[in-house]
Amino acid sequence: MPHMTEEKIEDELVKKLIEGVLDIKNLDKRLGQMRPGDVSELIEKLPEKLKIEVFQKLEPETASEILLTVNNENREILLEKMTTPQITGIVEEMDSDDAADFVSDLSDEQAREVLKELPPQESAEVRSLLDYPEDSAGGIMQLELVSLHDTQTCQDAIGVIRSKSEDVEELHNVFVMDSFNRLVGTVPLRKLILHSPGKPIREIMDPDPVSVGVTGDQETVAKIFRKYDVVSLPVVDEEGRLLGRILHDDVLDVITEIDTEDLLKVAGTDDEEFESASWLNAARYRLPWLLTSLVGGIFMAAIINALGAPIKQTVSLAAFIPVILGMGGNVSTQSSAIAVRSLSLGKINGSGIRHFILKELRVGFAMAVFCGTLIGAIATAINVEPEIGIVVGASLFASMAFASMMGTMVPLILHKLKVDPVLGAGPIVLTMADIAGLLIYFGLAAVLLRAFV
Amino acid sequence: MPHMTEEKIEDELVKKLIEGVLDIKNLDKRLGQMRPGDVSELIEKLPEKLKIEVFQKLEPETASEILLTVNNENREILLEKMTTPQITGIVEEMDSDDAADFVSDLSDEQAREVLKELPPQESAEVRSLLDYPEDSAGGIMQLELVSLHDTQTCQDAIGVIRSKSEDVEELHNVFVMDSFNRLVGTVPLRKLILHSPGKPIREIMDPDPVSVGVTGDQETVAKIFRKYDVVSLPVVDEEGRLLGRILHDDVLDVITEIDTEDLLKVAGTDDEEFESASWLNAARYRLPWLLTSLVGGIFMAAIINALGAPIKQTVSLAAFIPVILGMGGNVSTQSSAIAVRSLSLGKINGSGIRHFILKELRVGFAMAVFCGTLIGAIATAINVEPEIGIVVGASLFASMAFASMMGTMVPLILHKLKVDPVLGAGPIVLTMADIAGLLIYFGLAAVLLRAFV
Repeated sequence: MPHMTEEKIEDELVKKLIEGVLDIKNLDKRLGQMRPGDVSELIEKLPEKLKIEVFQKLEPETASEILLTVNNENREILLEKMTTPQITGIVEEMDSDDAADFVSDLSDEQAREVLKELPPQESAEVRSLLDYPEDSAGGIMQLELVSLHDTQTCQDAIGVIRSKSEDVEELHNVFVMDSFNRLVGTVPLRKLILHSPGKPIREIMDPDPVSVGVTGDQETVAKIFRKYDVVSLPVVDEEGRLLGRILHDDVLDVITEIDTEDLLKVAGTDDEEFESASWLNAARYRLPWLLTSLVGGIFMAAIINALGAPIKQTVSLAAFIPVILGMGGNVSTQSSAIAVRSLSLGKINGSGIRHFILKELRVGFAMAVFCGTLIGAIATAINVEPEIGIVVGASLFASMAFASMMGTMVPLILHKLKVDPVLGAGPIVLTMADIAGLLIYFGLAAVLLRAFV
Repeated sequence: MPHMTEEKIEDELVKKLIEGVLDIKNLDKRLGQMRPGDVSELIEKLPEKLKIEVFQKLEPETASEILLTVNNENREILLEKMTTPQITGIVEEMDSDDAADFVSDLSDEQAREVLKELPPQESAEVRSLLDYPEDSAGGIMQLELVSLHDTQTCQDAIGVIRSKSEDVEELHNVFVMDSFNRLVGTVPLRKLILHSPGKPIREIMDPDPVSVGVTGDQETVAKIFRKYDVVSLPVVDEEGRLLGRILHDDVLDVITEIDTEDLLKVAGTDDEEFESASWLNAARYRLPWLLTSLVGGIFMAAIINALGAPIKQTVSLAAFIPVILGMGGNVSTQSSAIAVRSLSLGKINGSGIRHFILKELRVGFAMAVFCGTLIGAIATAINVEPEIGIVVGASLFASMAFASMMGTMVPLILHKLKVDPVLGAGPIVLTMADIAGLLIYFGLAAVLLRAFV
């Protein structure tokens, strides 16, 4: 039963299918017993021809789940051989939120055809969801939910659940609305079970439910789930009227996506490449960052040539270039990662910003003093010219202090400007910190060494 | 109702309390209406004396939720003035998993006293949970759940839910066991509602439920939730007997913790500092990484002095040190972040490793060829000595290719050795890549330039 052994069974199955020991015709029963998540993994591991053959054996309901969980590359392979009516049949099986996401990933022409072939009501639902930005509460929510009015009873609620049982397969809460369809409460199913059928819903509902506005962004949705531990979050319009709901597993996907994006952008690449197995695509996503750095590097070569050439101790200075740049880069990466994550988890709010900045500047300053003094002493000890030691120590201090300030402030400023703060944690800022560090180093050297000599 | 305005109301409240316009005595009703997540935020924002005063006004149930959601620093402040009986009273209100986490954070002496004062059964439960490692399924699970045998009926299930209604406040599934207490199915509450009371549980349960072994690590738990979209995950022992359950909101906390740790370790710091607002503590967590880098930097200074001194073109060479090191660092960070995240999301499994490595090496090689050729051409164009251009281009190619291989392989090897792969993405490996890059650069220069001259 545990997860790990299942993977082995799966690998075994893949092997048998590839070697032809197991005929795909005899797979029906086996596939019927597997969970969709496992079938997805199986398909991802198979060679292209077998992927399609296995996929075509699936029931529409399973097929729809598979299309939603495999990565983009596999989805394209599976869709390639399908006709519009086949695709439409699979979309019909999806919840409204998944259907909208799926349709938005199709080519414009294919999307139009599928929307035309879908039953009118379903097509209208998907269209309405497509109007919301993908990363907003509206873009995440599904329309499948159970709601009733606050004048109704437990018995009524059970009736609605029954009448919607085809549509709403996952249900943890019933939403309660007033006569204007404004959300006024939620009732967990557990309470419905424990109260007598005649009990008015109003008396057992949790009033003042947590909800999110339909235009709220996905970061806000994630924060609400983290803060209030809800299992499903109602989505409302400006007047507080109920529009949809976001389920616990949808928010898990959202959080995984946000966190992946943050991590990879800090590291100078993009989460898009995650969806593609092609090395050429991966290189395409990573190269822009590297080119930023390359241009910065050429700029730095020019600085060293221009500022370094007139100084006779350039060779001794050169020895400490790596440490000056490396430390500045490390400090700026630390500070910016802390700032990005704090913003992303909502730890910096309103009055907390000043406190956060002050703390970060203190940390950066303290570390700069410590490391600057240390390297200054070491450089003086190992170098024939003590002036070099002073220049190196002072430069390391100044470049670290500057880098930590930049690493802290750039993400905060970007956040304030409504730009994704993680852009302030990637290679662009790192390269800027490098250039600043080098200017400080050779600038100080030019001034101090000339003064000494 | 939306989230954002609530924050403003909260800030207003904080301001009034600090200025004394609002007396804490008149806060009772207000606090009673607030959600625990909001009270936590309010307390975090208040000055120390007010934090304690507000906290003391809370009902034990709310107080227990507050202690579980504020950060470590605030928790210590709130606990300082409390007696053991008071703490014990609050622990009694907690679910078993939270109680165990809370007790494990207390000092040894305090923990012992609380465990002694707790009612015997509760104390035994907490003790049993404390035996599991904190980052294992056992360390995350709670004992509060509803289970019954496969010979029972829907009516029986409702009876058990009722009898446990004090203990099990959040419930989405009922677990079904065979006569050996082995987990054999789950029943969502929705199904219980829709079927007649006399219906045997066996006929409506979902058989072959997803579960996790009690020794499974938290990464496995996160993977299962992501893959199977479950709302609560049963935890079983080696024989498949039901021990506890993990809820959707617990896994959200786990995932947030894992992702924060990954991001901050890649950036060269630790998620521990997140819990502390003290700048001194933060510096303490960040300095070790910086010192690694500092030692590496001194080592690099030695390399440049030793290898560079005999070469007459050292000044020209020095100009390209930043670009050689910077590019190597960027490439190794990109590769290692991709590897860490892929491992963390379970995207690299069994047979997929070879494919992943091959892809990454191709990407790294392609980017190294591209950037190496480019910088070689540029260096030749701007430099008087064309040999320098050749050395720079060849070195950039070699150091990028090496850095990308190291960035990919080190996390994979650490994972294989059961060490946290993220250690292979931090400054240690970055510094090693830097040193390798510099050795390649000056080594090639020593060989090639001497050969040319």
